[in-house]
Amino acid sequence: MTGKSKQTMQVAQKAFEHFKQGLATGKWQAFFAMLADDFTFTFPQGKYQGSHQGKAIAEEFFTYVSQTFPAGIHVVEVLRVTGNDKTVIFEFRDEGMLRGQPYKNRVAVSFDVCGEKICAYREYFGSDGKSN
Amino acid sequence: MTGKSKQTMQVAQKAFEHFKQGLATGKWQAFFAMLADDFTFTFPQGKYQGSHQGKAIAEEFFTYVSQTFPAGIHVVEVLRVTGNDKTVIFEFRDEGMLRGQPYKNRVAVSFDVCGEKICAYREYFGSDGKSN
Repeated sequence: MTGKSKQTMQVAQKAFEHFKQGLATGKWQAFFAMLADDFTFTFPQGKYQGSHQGKAIAEEFFTYVSQTFPAGIHVVEVLRVTGNDKTVIFEFRDEGMLRGQPYKNRVAVSFDVCGEKICAYREYFGSDGKSN
Repeated sequence: MTGKSKQTMQVAQKAFEHFKQGLATGKWQAFFAMLADDFTFTFPQGKYQGSHQGKAIAEEFFTYVSQTFPAGIHVVEVLRVTGNDKTVIFEFRDEGMLRGQPYKNRVAVSFDVCGEKICAYREYFGSDGKSN
């Protein structure tokens, strides 16, 4: 792994820790602090399906996730972490409670790193929300 | 990128070309020839949702995909290719016709490489099948 790739991995790992904390607790400030001003996110389904640019809508989105899962979403297993000098992708299994029903998924999230910030986030679903 | 990562990338790129050809044409033989005997695939939804091991069910699955999309699925843009010495992930936009309706998706596929073969494949959906 080159020096640039190592630095990218370190920034992405730090962001992923804050992301996990946000999912679990609804406390997103540490994650938000790592987002670039022109941060873009892409989400598969629902109200925020598609691509959106800017920190404001990103903060609205992640807050909405925590409102939808008031007991949190918990990353129960990280399956793979794959990165190069620009992008790091985390494949993981997660679980929570959604409207009183158990929620389980496999997810891939792809972070683009710009310096010390995350400039893009793309989320992909690997299951149906019922098994992982 | 290290020597091992370069080799892994070359094998994965070759497999991805055959994968694209299979999706577009239904001709999967070149892709199947690159699958390890204990090849495992994980798919998000539908009849083949979950993880499955062995070449036989993999061949059945990819053949089923082509039966479901008789005019093919076409990779219209590769957005990112991210890899290390073991795994390569392709993020792309694809399009096709599903039961007479336009089908569009964003997809991440994660290949694990073992020597000259692909030993695992995990697919993730980044959209809803209607936009990409």
